[in-house]
Amino acid sequence: MTTWRVVFEYDGSAYSGWQRQPNVRSVQGTVEDALCEVLGGQRVPLIASGRTDAGVHAFGQLCSFRTTVDRKPTSIRDGLNSKLPDDIACLVAAPAQPEFHAQRSATGKLYRYVLRIGPVPSALRAGRYWGVRWPLDLDAMNEALVHLTGEHDFTSFRAAGCSARSPVRELRRADVHVLGDEMRFEFYGAGFLRHMVRNIVGSTLEVGRGRKPATWMAELRDARDRGLGGRTAPGCGLFLVRVDYPSELLSLG
Amino acid sequence: MTTWRVVFEYDGSAYSGWQRQPNVRSVQGTVEDALCEVLGGQRVPLIASGRTDAGVHAFGQLCSFRTTVDRKPTSIRDGLNSKLPDDIACLVAAPAQPEFHAQRSATGKLYRYVLRIGPVPSALRAGRYWGVRWPLDLDAMNEALVHLTGEHDFTSFRAAGCSARSPVRELRRADVHVLGDEMRFEFYGAGFLRHMVRNIVGSTLEVGRGRKPATWMAELRDARDRGLGGRTAPGCGLFLVRVDYPSELLSLG
Repeated sequence: MTTWRVVFEYDGSAYSGWQRQPNVRSVQGTVEDALCEVLGGQRVPLIASGRTDAGVHAFGQLCSFRTTVDRKPTSIRDGLNSKLPDDIACLVAAPAQPEFHAQRSATGKLYRYVLRIGPVPSALRAGRYWGVRWPLDLDAMNEALVHLTGEHDFTSFRAAGCSARSPVRELRRADVHVLGDEMRFEFYGAGFLRHMVRNIVGSTLEVGRGRKPATWMAELRDARDRGLGGRTAPGCGLFLVRVDYPSELLSLG
Repeated sequence: MTTWRVVFEYDGSAYSGWQRQPNVRSVQGTVEDALCEVLGGQRVPLIASGRTDAGVHAFGQLCSFRTTVDRKPTSIRDGLNSKLPDDIACLVAAPAQPEFHAQRSATGKLYRYVLRIGPVPSALRAGRYWGVRWPLDLDAMNEALVHLTGEHDFTSFRAAGCSARSPVRELRRADVHVLGDEMRFEFYGAGFLRHMVRNIVGSTLEVGRGRKPATWMAELRDARDRGLGGRTAPGCGLFLVRVDYPSELLSLG
């Protein structure tokens, strides 16, 4: 039995999200089907670092699986790529320590949220940003985000259907910067609640648009009431950039 | 009668190329149909700076058209964007001098060709690069490209079906650099023959792979024989980045 670590890049536009569900096209289902073919018919469950929502993209979604089938790393990687559609790519396939588990072992995740400001869409980035028409105050948004870094109860930024036992999370980084004609939010933490990044972005825009002062973000956080926050930013602007693990779990020997 | 300058960004993956043709989906046909709706049913021909082949993309394809219909620039731009599919965007619509002609007035065009090296595909850039598995010698490729800058007979890099009267063109810039995991060729000139950029890229790779010395490019150029060159690089890696015009033709007043 070998434990494998596999990294996937995907464009989530055409998928109902990561999680395999009946009668819809999911990233997990698509990859598990390809993996079954690569493993000569052995069907194994693929564990991801976390689920991504419909339309959300990944530069590096980390997954693990176990199999009794003997394959070389390049056979797994190239075999998957030959069977996967163009909008999912296997970047890495490597044996890992037996106890490696893509979800439970993760120590940090970096998410990016991409906005474009103005009335003109981009054709070459279609489905990969949220286009907003309002001018936004970058400094005020960064001031607001400071109130969310550290360990907090994130109930005000949690989706109704979130199944996590505790609403407390530690956000180690939360900021926004300009790159070309994009505004990019980046969030780093050990774990995130359902819709947490998208709800934080939506509420931060209330500050960016001048509807609320930056200090409102602290009030919103302390109110522990999702109903008081801004709208949920659409999934298409969100990218799972990277997932970190303790290095001793990754490589063998 | 107003002459208009319009700039389009497009992902060419789903199109047979720029030129309108019967029974296929072309960029020109798609845009002309949208423009006809925006102009309340008046059908006008759209003149582009040049045709792009199947699968070729544009960050800024310049076009001109004339109409008797009176519209504000933002109505043309936003009207087009509301009717165009996501993979074509109108970035700019502005009145131009009456004699402005997107093809005949162009003084320079910048093309980019994007390669990715290695066995692993990218899902988020699918259809937007040529993936090659051979290691490439960047210095040798730049040495080879030096032999093509200046005014030359480009018969060795011209497609069989090219209808241009003269095979002589002036290439003002031709180089290749590394950016992240991409290799980007850039070519600037007043005009290009059919498949000229893609044929230059294909032949430059013969040098990059070490199959030919850099000086072979001068021999190939002087041989005026397309049959001696490398393969035509696929359209998906090619981007029309920018088209330049004399500034006095662009704005009014």
